[in-house]
Amino acid sequence: MSTSAALDASCIFCKIIRGEIPSFKIYETKYSYSFLDIEPTTKGHILIIPKYHGAKLHNVPDEYLSDILPVTKKLVRALGLEIDSPEGTGYNVLQNNGRIAHQYVDHVHFHLIPKPNVDEGLEEGWPAKKADMAELKKYADELAAKVNN
Amino acid sequence: MSTSAALDASCIFCKIIRGEIPSFKIYETKYSYSFLDIEPTTKGHILIIPKYHGAKLHNVPDEYLSDILPVTKKLVRALGLEIDSPEGTGYNVLQNNGRIAHQYVDHVHFHLIPKPNVDEGLEEGWPAKKADMAELKKYADELAAKVNN
Repeated sequence: MSTSAALDASCIFCKIIRGEIPSFKIYETKYSYSFLDIEPTTKGHILIIPKYHGAKLHNVPDEYLSDILPVTKKLVRALGLEIDSPEGTGYNVLQNNGRIAHQYVDHVHFHLIPKPNVDEGLEEGWPAKKADMAELKKYADELAAKVNN
Repeated sequence: MSTSAALDASCIFCKIIRGEIPSFKIYETKYSYSFLDIEPTTKGHILIIPKYHGAKLHNVPDEYLSDILPVTKKLVRALGLEIDSPEGTGYNVLQNNGRIAHQYVDHVHFHLIPKPNVDEGLEEGWPAKKADMAELKKYADELAAKVNN
């Protein structure tokens, strides 16, 4: 599929990919386009988007998805975040789907966000609770049956 | 590289991959292993891990990374989250690197987290600010030079 056929005429991210709207481009492959977020949560907050107009992750073909994380790795190194201490500067990779999950542009975008300190970058709330083990087992078996079909 | 050569003897996630510690497995490929989180933030909170012992994203070879998102897509469908309304039930894909970025097991793991309502699933804090456009341009050019080298 050619790039243009995979894009949408009115989508802001498709317009960025086509160069109809300017962006702070960092890197581009056949399948993805990476640029600086203009409302960053910290310096170096990057968006990586597939060159395919899909609103959510499950709308995007595999060949576009497979390109995203190797590109993210290159960008991590360009940002100088390849630090192998658990306590060193960290980073988060995040992709939101749907309004309730904080997605505000309906073209899949991955955030690569450095985490230099507690006040900058992504903040996470984690309402975890212990699960019932018997229920987890039953649900895992249900999902396994579905995913393998 | 065989699976065993890519794993670490003392890592809890490597032990799960090898079956030395039980888990609620859902799906497995040559490159990844997916199972239910036992302290879920909501029902269906899944971990997808590469069958390679790398602490952070930048430590994992590309062939393992390329497998993760197509697998995630399969799991989204098994969870019944393939809803194409922006306002429908959402989901988040998240991968944390380093303690400051909320990583607590030093083997790369991707969270696939349904977002059924505001009280369950991932909570996000987003300290965004408008950036200086001239600074962004300069930094994008610096990063582009690095990533293309």
